[in-house]
Amino acid sequence: MAEPWATWGIDLHLEPTGPGLRRGLTGALREAVRSGRLTPGTRLPSSRALAADLGIARNTVADAYADLVAEGWLTARQGSGTRVATVAPARQPGTVPPAGTAVHAPARARGRPAYDLRPGSPDLASFPRAEWLRAARRALATAPYQALDYGDPRGRPELRAALAGYLSRARGVRADPERIVVCAGFAHALRLLGTVLRARGARTVAVESYGLDVHRDLLADAGLATTPLPFDALGTDPAGLLGADAVLLTPAHQFPMGVPLHRDRRAAVLDRARRTGALVLEDDYDGEFRYDRQPVGALQGLDPDRVAYLGTASKSLAPGLRLAWAVLPPDLAGEVAAAKGGVDTCGALDQLTLAEFLTSGAYDRHVRAARLRYRRRRDALVAAVAARAPQARVTGIAAGLHVLLRLPPGSEQSVVQAANWRGLALHGLSRYRNPAARLEPPDALVVGYGTPPDHAWSGALDALCATLPG
Amino acid sequence: MAEPWATWGIDLHLEPTGPGLRRGLTGALREAVRSGRLTPGTRLPSSRALAADLGIARNTVADAYADLVAEGWLTARQGSGTRVATVAPARQPGTVPPAGTAVHAPARARGRPAYDLRPGSPDLASFPRAEWLRAARRALATAPYQALDYGDPRGRPELRAALAGYLSRARGVRADPERIVVCAGFAHALRLLGTVLRARGARTVAVESYGLDVHRDLLADAGLATTPLPFDALGTDPAGLLGADAVLLTPAHQFPMGVPLHRDRRAAVLDRARRTGALVLEDDYDGEFRYDRQPVGALQGLDPDRVAYLGTASKSLAPGLRLAWAVLPPDLAGEVAAAKGGVDTCGALDQLTLAEFLTSGAYDRHVRAARLRYRRRRDALVAAVAARAPQARVTGIAAGLHVLLRLPPGSEQSVVQAANWRGLALHGLSRYRNPAARLEPPDALVVGYGTPPDHAWSGALDALCATLPG
Repeated sequence: MAEPWATWGIDLHLEPTGPGLRRGLTGALREAVRSGRLTPGTRLPSSRALAADLGIARNTVADAYADLVAEGWLTARQGSGTRVATVAPARQPGTVPPAGTAVHAPARARGRPAYDLRPGSPDLASFPRAEWLRAARRALATAPYQALDYGDPRGRPELRAALAGYLSRARGVRADPERIVVCAGFAHALRLLGTVLRARGARTVAVESYGLDVHRDLLADAGLATTPLPFDALGTDPAGLLGADAVLLTPAHQFPMGVPLHRDRRAAVLDRARRTGALVLEDDYDGEFRYDRQPVGALQGLDPDRVAYLGTASKSLAPGLRLAWAVLPPDLAGEVAAAKGGVDTCGALDQLTLAEFLTSGAYDRHVRAARLRYRRRRDALVAAVAARAPQARVTGIAAGLHVLLRLPPGSEQSVVQAANWRGLALHGLSRYRNPAARLEPPDALVVGYGTPPDHAWSGALDALCATLPG
Repeated sequence: MAEPWATWGIDLHLEPTGPGLRRGLTGALREAVRSGRLTPGTRLPSSRALAADLGIARNTVADAYADLVAEGWLTARQGSGTRVATVAPARQPGTVPPAGTAVHAPARARGRPAYDLRPGSPDLASFPRAEWLRAARRALATAPYQALDYGDPRGRPELRAALAGYLSRARGVRADPERIVVCAGFAHALRLLGTVLRARGARTVAVESYGLDVHRDLLADAGLATTPLPFDALGTDPAGLLGADAVLLTPAHQFPMGVPLHRDRRAAVLDRARRTGALVLEDDYDGEFRYDRQPVGALQGLDPDRVAYLGTASKSLAPGLRLAWAVLPPDLAGEVAAAKGGVDTCGALDQLTLAEFLTSGAYDRHVRAARLRYRRRRDALVAAVAARAPQARVTGIAAGLHVLLRLPPGSEQSVVQAANWRGLALHGLSRYRNPAARLEPPDALVVGYGTPPDHAWSGALDALCATLPG
């Protein structure tokens, strides 16, 4: 995912740098007009203000505005600024921006795509609001008043104790509360770890050939270079780990390929890491969701002093909670907590509520119900694609909230575009390829079947099948 | 405040570096045994584990252990590690650590000082739990499900809109939602601003001669040097601002001196800042609490493009919420949000709840009630000191949750120590002096009368008066 930028009520995902920036901005603005999210007559911010908003050069914005004036989407008049043209060329309501720009959640309410099958978020309409409030009430009723004070940077002791029990039981993590640091989401945990590793002298982190650019960017922000590891039928090959100070992996469910790391490779990763002294960063983003067999236990359980385990409530509950957890070798736990700046950065009330949610069994009940719901969606997706788009092939189905949908060669870009014109937001696999990796990704879609609310699911599936080559 | 460190259930405040580290650690451990927080027979962590916890050299811990074994507080035996001696020398229950080490909230539950008049936290026992839960229920009942997704790094639009209205009305801040960035506490806001200013090429931030070392440390972490401004009867003198890229001030209520910035100085700060191009960082930590006259409006209202206004819920509600807000010049708002790392880092539920709390009027009602309660405490404190300790003089009483209590020359350290031995935690003024400032602080206490819960207030006041020279 690229950086989400919020500007005058419209949130844009733009590649923050590079030659694609002007093109991306122009395309995003054009689509905002085309789709009706920016209504005719709307006055745009000055190029100076928008450039400041986006943290980019003013000329880039001015150029994008000029392009769109030339194309007839915008008008520019002395004294009245730049406005959306009242007769815009060929507007098509219900369309969504092309791949590379993506409407962010708050904007969806106004001019959102009809359907969204991009990966990354769970079904937010199924967030257990009533159960969460009950847990909040119980947590607030019993918490000592000191729990509302400045807190331990590792996070509330109640939550760390609850997580230690849960992670040990459900994911085979060797956790004790002293090893756990609560963070404001996975990105926060990765940012803290990157800072600490860099301060220890680390220079390079090996990453997967497929993954999220924001994760590589976070490591780069911390001063760490990333280098891709080869990927084949067994998953990521750690042979190239030599020379890296750490390796970031999704062993239970590779994102976005959807496969678990082969058991031989699991052993090889730990073996290499031990020999080279590298730290393994285990991103267990959706470890709760496995359908056809027992979950793959966390790599951390095999070598807790060599592996930093990273989990999150973003897939099992909601990203908006901004709660994640790192289970760390003891020497790292103190340093990562200190990197938070000496005090906790996560709200005590949400932490106490999640602790109560975990210990009362509400979390297990919620995950079981969600697992059943997502499994039904997955089954429906596999059956519908088999029946209606036999040229496509679904893989990576055993776990998680997304699948890989293999397409006939050369068709990925046109399928994504056709879907967008139908009002279906989709991501192709190519956007998740590490540009530094030496591999040619197959044509495929990364279909996030967890994203739509229940009422939109069958419509989204229909739109998908109608878009696929028959 | 120094860094709070959490280790095996005991939280220590230690200066993180420098020659005082070993002495501080030895003293803190000695006091933990002396006061009974570490009970006889307790096994201490290995020096390696504790060193890793604290992020300090193992030798420092080993040396501190050795000192305490020599003194008889600890015993060390092959195979059973280091333990608290079963007959420790002259244990005095009810004492608290000496100034420079301080028991952090979670530890108070076990072996806390009987009374706490250190500044920094409001009366947490008066947190409006029921009203907060009601607001949470209303907020969750009406929020769209998209509010639970990854969010705008500026914070939830509902909260920014509510803050814009409140800050304009209550503090004279020129706020619109696009200028506001929600942060996880004041420290988070200062850290983000420091990072952005440094990236823009800033080198030096002018600070007050009295203030919190953690704020200077946060700026130093961002690569910024701090330089103290002179302080006199009119407050901070901006004459020395030349050469600084920014200035961090507490204009409404200087911390810890308790006085507002004189109106001539307010004008001078803005004048200097305009002439030198410096940004003013306005720390309005307790602007809600003013007793004897109308509140001093925010400096930001006079020049919103030159002043970054920083407010927090830590004093008006509770630090544990981890919610603060920055109202920024437009060009800075986008950059500070981007420095968050592309997504929001504050929980959406707490943000929605605070928005509901503000717009429903619950926040105003809570602040009014708290203001009355704190004002009564202040009046009782002023009256008790006048009656029982006529040598002491109370200043800085018009606002906030603390006063300055002037002592006879040379008596500050002995009063703080005597208070500690009575089980009353107190801070002297000297700990808030910027070591780089050329001034000799008067002997004084910084008395936080907001800190005790209601049931402990009169006992705390009695203990204070009994400690003061009569």
